[in-house]
Amino acid sequence: MALQVAVCGPRECSETERSTAHDVGRLLAEAGAVVLTGGGGGVMAAASAGARAAGGLVVGVLPGGRDGANPHVSVALATGLGEARNAVLVASADVVVVVGGSWGTLSEVALARRRGTPVVTIGGWQVRDADGSELPDGPRAAATPEEAVAAALAAAGAR
Amino acid sequence: MALQVAVCGPRECSETERSTAHDVGRLLAEAGAVVLTGGGGGVMAAASAGARAAGGLVVGVLPGGRDGANPHVSVALATGLGEARNAVLVASADVVVVVGGSWGTLSEVALARRRGTPVVTIGGWQVRDADGSELPDGPRAAATPEEAVAAALAAAGAR
Amino acid sequence: MALQVAVCGPRECSETERSTAHDVGRLLAEAGAVVLTGGGGGVMAAASAGARAAGGLVVGVLPGGRDGANPHVSVALATGLGEARNAVLVASADVVVVVGGSWGTLSEVALARRRGTPVVTIGGWQVRDADGSELPDGPRAAATPEEAVAAALAAAGAR
Amino acid sequence: MALQVAVCGPRECSETERSTAHDVGRLLAEAGAVVLTGGGGGVMAAASAGARAAGGLVVGVLPGGRDGANPHVSVALATGLGEARNAVLVASADVVVVVGGSWGTLSEVALARRRGTPVVTIGGWQVRDADGSELPDGPRAAATPEEAVAAALAAAGAR
Repeated sequence: MALQVAVCGPRECSETERSTAHDVGRLLAEAGAVVLTGGGGGVMAAASAGARAAGGLVVGVLPGGRDGANPHVSVALATGLGEARNAVLVASADVVVVVGGSWGTLSEVALARRRGTPVVTIGGWQVRDADGSELPDGPRAAATPEEAVAAALAAAGAR
Repeated sequence: MALQVAVCGPRECSETERSTAHDVGRLLAEAGAVVLTGGGGGVMAAASAGARAAGGLVVGVLPGGRDGANPHVSVALATGLGEARNAVLVASADVVVVVGGSWGTLSEVALARRRGTPVVTIGGWQVRDADGSELPDGPRAAATPEEAVAAALAAAGAR
Repeated sequence: MALQVAVCGPRECSETERSTAHDVGRLLAEAGAVVLTGGGGGVMAAASAGARAAGGLVVGVLPGGRDGANPHVSVALATGLGEARNAVLVASADVVVVVGGSWGTLSEVALARRRGTPVVTIGGWQVRDADGSELPDGPRAAATPEEAVAAALAAAGAR
Repeated sequence: MALQVAVCGPRECSETERSTAHDVGRLLAEAGAVVLTGGGGGVMAAASAGARAAGGLVVGVLPGGRDGANPHVSVALATGLGEARNAVLVASADVVVVVGGSWGTLSEVALARRRGTPVVTIGGWQVRDADGSELPDGPRAAATPEEAVAAALAAAGAR
């Protein structure tokens, strides 16, 4: 079975985040990975479009019905679970790449780290402990799509 | 997006059911449908193998982790939801084809009919009301894989 | 911890079913059991009202938000899971009592039997195998609320 | 229906966190609130014990079976959903009180804020945006159990 990589990020995102997510999706598809997303707009749609443009397979794991899917998914899992679908999305991923920040996105980071699934972020929110120190097992930060995808593939391969 | 058809049936099945499920998977893939299953053995594995042999795309929606997937799925959604994944599988399907009977399979029939999703059965269990009468909105019975797939595609198209 | 008994049945029910469900809820509360229901109307509301009138504790396990709860629940679990909540409800029960039939109710019967959880029905739908024979591990039928609750308590105690 | 307050925090916690959680549970029960927790050990068990000691009602929303419940829950919802139960727990709460930090706890903070549910933390992890700035809609920090419970009750009442 191919590597499965979740790309997570906010529905409402900047043009830079959209472009970054598109590149992440494209690079993952070029590496032969299946791209999983939450199936919605913004970062999710951009990563999906990038992956599809490179001939990749994209699975949207939606909170509600299939009519909420962006037009770039190959398959739409209409979970009907609401935000509990974030746990389903993360549980299906070998590694998670995050572009940008939102509360929903943060829940995916946290659920992934709870499972021990590696997370690579580009421009995402920061998490600190109660003293303001960095966490030893937090996500790895990357500066570019190329660096993020390379780190994600390395982390998935190392598991 | 392609039509999404769930094929449901018991993990422990007869050779006849296995052969029937293989044919159902093949016919669905030949018709261009994405095949969704619960990702396990028996009917699920046979339908997946049939679809893959015909070049189809197969998504396994698993109750637990990816290591429970049969070898024929293209993508494994490791929901971690236990039997609640039956609701996720059914919610993602345009139509459900059932081969054989089990309590888990019956829950998928019931959850599909609860949603108004059409169900076509080959050799599945029967459901009657408290008086023993047939239900007006029960699954449609088919005698062969060809008849079942034709009925499923017609029902999905008519929605 | 007290015994936890799920009472399942349709939202739209007859006056007889409503009265039966009220008695079932009352008898369960009098026996010291916590009553779990799907939190909605019809059989669910009647069983909850019966249990509360006898001083019992009632937990509604809702498919959506708390505003969908009937007025008789002590606690409302607003799962947001849609019909996947049926699996959550059943998984939390030592035994399931069913009053009347519907597709949603049938999914709860099937999910309970899939887990090996005992089910007692009053006037519920019938399930037969492909040949029309009775299933060896199907629900037990009861004729009255008293008989149903006695059978449920015995089955839960025997586990 | 009574106010429903989720108390979240790590399974492995310090003695200070345990004592804080016990006081939070007690104060919530004294205020008439139903206490919801994840049903496990550490902060969850301490808050449950505090609430029960004050005569309160405690619902444990467990990731797996009922045998994973701490001895202080009044009712155990054995969701079988794995970490997806975090979303169920949060969706059922009018307000969330967090004691201490962990990845699972952070997922509950994030899922709550995603829904707009107020969150009050005592000693929890910090979340910053990509620039390291505080988020405008982040949790409110409290220094003591008394302050946390007062803030939680006020926030729930203001919704």
